[in-house]
Amino acid sequence: MMNYKNKQWRLKRYPEGMPQLDNWELVESPVPEIGEGEFLVRSIYLSVDPYMRGRISPKENYAKGVQLGDLMVGGGVGQVIQSRNPDFSEGDYVVSDMSFGWQEFVVFDGSESRRFEKDVTPLHAELSYLGIPGLTAYMVLLEATGLKAGETLVVSAASGAVGQVAGQIARLLGARAIAVASSDEKLAWCRELGYDEVINYRTCTDLDAAFKRAAPQGVNVFLDNTAGPIHHAVMKNLAEKARVSIVGTVAVADRFDEEDIGPTNLRRILVKRARVEGFLLFDFVEKFPEARKAIIDWFKEGKIKYREDVMEGIESMPEAFIRMLEGRNFGKQLVKL
Amino acid sequence: MMNYKNKQWRLKRYPEGMPQLDNWELVESPVPEIGEGEFLVRSIYLSVDPYMRGRISPKENYAKGVQLGDLMVGGGVGQVIQSRNPDFSEGDYVVSDMSFGWQEFVVFDGSESRRFEKDVTPLHAELSYLGIPGLTAYMVLLEATGLKAGETLVVSAASGAVGQVAGQIARLLGARAIAVASSDEKLAWCRELGYDEVINYRTCTDLDAAFKRAAPQGVNVFLDNTAGPIHHAVMKNLAEKARVSIVGTVAVADRFDEEDIGPTNLRRILVKRARVEGFLLFDFVEKFPEARKAIIDWFKEGKIKYREDVMEGIESMPEAFIRMLEGRNFGKQLVKL
Repeated sequence: MMNYKNKQWRLKRYPEGMPQLDNWELVESPVPEIGEGEFLVRSIYLSVDPYMRGRISPKENYAKGVQLGDLMVGGGVGQVIQSRNPDFSEGDYVVSDMSFGWQEFVVFDGSESRRFEKDVTPLHAELSYLGIPGLTAYMVLLEATGLKAGETLVVSAASGAVGQVAGQIARLLGARAIAVASSDEKLAWCRELGYDEVINYRTCTDLDAAFKRAAPQGVNVFLDNTAGPIHHAVMKNLAEKARVSIVGTVAVADRFDEEDIGPTNLRRILVKRARVEGFLLFDFVEKFPEARKAIIDWFKEGKIKYREDVMEGIESMPEAFIRMLEGRNFGKQLVKL
Repeated sequence: MMNYKNKQWRLKRYPEGMPQLDNWELVESPVPEIGEGEFLVRSIYLSVDPYMRGRISPKENYAKGVQLGDLMVGGGVGQVIQSRNPDFSEGDYVVSDMSFGWQEFVVFDGSESRRFEKDVTPLHAELSYLGIPGLTAYMVLLEATGLKAGETLVVSAASGAVGQVAGQIARLLGARAIAVASSDEKLAWCRELGYDEVINYRTCTDLDAAFKRAAPQGVNVFLDNTAGPIHHAVMKNLAEKARVSIVGTVAVADRFDEEDIGPTNLRRILVKRARVEGFLLFDFVEKFPEARKAIIDWFKEGKIKYREDVMEGIESMPEAFIRMLEGRNFGKQLVKL
């Protein structure tokens, strides 16, 4: 593989607030030789996800951050083009949730990637409804919060990578679901997915009143992808014994290294005996196979729809990432190489 | 009983912020005649507790509020002086967690009170370490948060009614306990109860640093009696998978009807996968007998110490209540009639 070059995005400086295109630089490295037990994969789809913002902050996070000069972290799907590992053959498709990196070629030894059959679902499904976003929706609703039939769910960033699946799972569980998103176009898609009520947080002048109307009995489960004003308005409308999963905080991403000041809601949490809990998907890793099976079955039965937003070329990785952080994407953001 | 008068404190107007003595008025009512199945009890100790502040706010709470002109709600212990109920005889001691009211005489039918033997523990223990405060400490640590040996607990208002028991249960479970209170005298008592570290929040100039020193591995469980600045500082020092029980919000009692604005900590809750949960004792009512038995056993073995702060006379109820809200009491606040 010495004749290929491997284009890689490396972290050049830590962003302050919203990242800029020049926080990374594109470098060309030689494609590494594979050793015994290893195999070489060519990237087909790379994923950009909100968690990456946390990895490029020098601040404490649940995972080790990307150091200056390091390859940017990320998941992807690709195809094996050379192998010295008996379990992976040329032509196999593999997916890795976090260990692809923003690059054209990657060497694995099998421990951080998983082979999949491409005939059941589309290739990129492994990065969307069968990957981190889909598993997140599944685990938040079925494991972390235990959403029940007849309950009311609110999802922020509802047309996004996680939210699309969450609304459909809610419907399958017999729960009512309220979508919050940033445009009427996104909300029309949420309706199509089965969300019962939709709120456009950009045009809504009184979020508190909007939730009171949409959830007159109160909100039982809140899958919070954003923090910020949507969070505060939902907290005013919790039902007794409500469960709030903090999945993402993208609304405070542009002041990531500052305090997020707002209503602390402690009196409400007490009075409603609500639970507010941080959610990390990888705490549920032992349930992944069962969740994937359930989602594939729903897909085969035509019960899961999904929408991706695909940009082209390794060069567009930083732009795709910033676009996603700013909510300008529509559906799960991917880059096709 | 027609020759007795029954002095009662009735709610005269809703407080704004911290209650004032003239929020109630002392009225004399006739002592009611008892009907078939009822019995008359003379109050011996009445309790004042932080939850009462919530009951005299027109704002939503987990329980129905006291209406203007109504008898003020509250628990107490007393002695049966007349009975037409076969299960309760003259001379029996009874306790009621919430249904005594601020008055000298009360009529029960047995459904809202419980008989107890006075030879095991002192009379007033039924209002302190065997009553709401002791059961709260027990349920928060053993049921709601599951404090484990080797973990670090923080308790705010640690010398108070709940905190005294919490520190001792932590020690019995093999956990480390950090007391936060408002005076060195109170903290000396916390040390005596077995708290490992103490922080005086009135004289401490950097609470965040104080918690970093006292809990270098982070805080695993936080029994939050106060909200406010202590809450914010502990939230900066959570360990992974920390559990925060919101038991009381007395620090924001003087702005009870306003928002409590502060750091919302959502990013921290996510990164630490912490859980912040509202705690209401009566959600655990089926565990009360088991908890009472455990606490009585610890008491008999000399493992539980406790301190009360007793005022005299029905006239002092509002003063005792305000004193407790302002943290001027030392130990569980009671009034002896």
